Amino acid sequence: MIDPICFIHDQFLPLSQANVPVSDLGLQRGYGVFDFFRVKGNSALFLDAHLDRFYHSAEYMHLPIPLERAQLKEKIQELINRNRFSDSGVRMTLTGGASPDGYQPGIPHFMMVQQAIVPPPDRISDAPYVLMCYEHQRQLPMVKSTDYLMAVWLQPRVREAGAQDVLYTSQGWIRECPRSNIFLVTASGTLVTPASHMLKGITRANILQAAQTIMPVEERDLHIDELATAREVFVSSTTKRIIPVTKIDQSFTATYNSESYCTRLFELLRSAEPW
Amino acid sequence: MIDPICFIHDQFLPLSQANVPVSDLGLQRGYGVFDFFRVKGNSALFLDAHLDRFYHSAEYMHLPIPLERAQLKEKIQELINRNRFSDSGVRMTLTGGASPDGYQPGIPHFMMVQQAIVPPPDRISDAPYVLMCYEHQRQLPMVKSTDYLMAVWLQPRVREAGAQDVLYTSQGWIRECPRSNIFLVTASGTLVTPASHMLKGITRANILQAAQTIMPVEERDLHIDELATAREVFVSSTTKRIIPVTKIDQSFTATYNSESYCTRLFELLRSAEPW
Repeated sequence: MIDPICFIHDQFLPLSQANVPVSDLGLQRGYGVFDFFRVKGNSALFLDAHLDRFYHSAEYMHLPIPLERAQLKEKIQELINRNRFSDSGVRMTLTGGASPDGYQPGIPHFMMVQQAIVPPPDRISDAPYVLMCYEHQRQLPMVKSTDYLMAVWLQPRVREAGAQDVLYTSQGWIRECPRSNIFLVTASGTLVTPASHMLKGITRANILQAAQTIMPVEERDLHIDELATAREVFVSSTTKRIIPVTKIDQSFTATYNSESYCTRLFELLRSAEPW
Repeated sequence: MIDPICFIHDQFLPLSQANVPVSDLGLQRGYGVFDFFRVKGNSALFLDAHLDRFYHSAEYMHLPIPLERAQLKEKIQELINRNRFSDSGVRMTLTGGASPDGYQPGIPHFMMVQQAIVPPPDRISDAPYVLMCYEHQRQLPMVKSTDYLMAVWLQPRVREAGAQDVLYTSQGWIRECPRSNIFLVTASGTLVTPASHMLKGITRANILQAAQTIMPVEERDLHIDELATAREVFVSSTTKRIIPVTKIDQSFTATYNSESYCTRLFELLRSAEPW
């Protein structure tokens, strides 16, 4: 069993020895933020974009990060150098800390855990990928909080439905999957992705930029009725990049080939980005 | 500094030594449930009602409690006997545990922390108690989950507004405060409390039962427009029992005296219950 080095309470420790006190507000009140970035060899990918988002999440949640950005980057590099994974991901977590009254944030606890992960595949997936819609609006959706109560709770239902993931919708509007953003290609070949009430992924931003070279792009609210006429749907995430969606409830089905926009976008990212 | 004994990972330990691994799903994904009951001397108050709710919360969240109810009662009594507080509260917390993939619940972590608390006052409070409405529907509201993201996040705003707490409303409907239930006395003297989309408190149930002897009682959805004509509003909780609300935004103001229903209900509980 690998026991990677992690960074917690301002020191480097084996993960097996990394604990937080039970009084931590992250545990007792679900109050915390995090971010997750990929590491290829000894390089953190899109680190500045992830740090921008992490500092924003923390500020929004009134949780000061105990390290200046330059210091944090040094600690990240030291963590990477110590662990020497070939392909990995680093999860930075900042919690409410030990609270004097169990309610008001105290001094936040900051920790980083690095673990081996499977890098994104070289070719876009051709496996079925089914989404199940569920009526839910994440609270404080612009923040990458540790609130996955609904996502974890829905796991048995997702499996029962034969789906791979849940797609949150709110009063008819398409929002996001718990750990990925959603894109739709309209009948006329425009790429659309929701603009609000969801977390803006780093891969989402990279796709929006790359797509501008091959198709019209729109960031706007997306209604579930638009699934009926959509040509393609795909989801994006840091670990998977792009996954084509083959079915969403009774609203959408599709198959894909090498000419599909999602395939072409996958290849665009593949050739332009560290993989 | 008092270091009470707590119960965690099936053993009794000083709180200062009670930790959970950083991989705990309660910390990483905000996935957990809890309950909290008062202890007077060596007696746990309304323990069966709290255990009913705790086992229900756990089952709903697919988290098995690692102790049978009779065993759990024994551990609670042992905890109480070891700590010997005169007035205290016990918080039982059950989290998703160490997860194999950081997403699916693993083997839950169960812990109990006992701490000294101030017992409810002998007389009903005559201090101003102001609520600030905020549009929010708690997710899985019938479960006492550890999700207090919105409540903790709103704390600075509550203080800025000069309020004591937030009242969640959803599309015009009154739900609950983050840690208490709400009651309203109509102009005609009927006691009304929301029936759905909120957590049903143990003190709430005790009040509903006691009130039947002095006034008509209704459990039903309660619209914010009803605040304008309400005669009284109060909140209920395990630690405070009944607190009269003096103001809610621009919608409601009231003063109370010994003839007020809330005062009479307070006295009814005071005389009937262990205090």
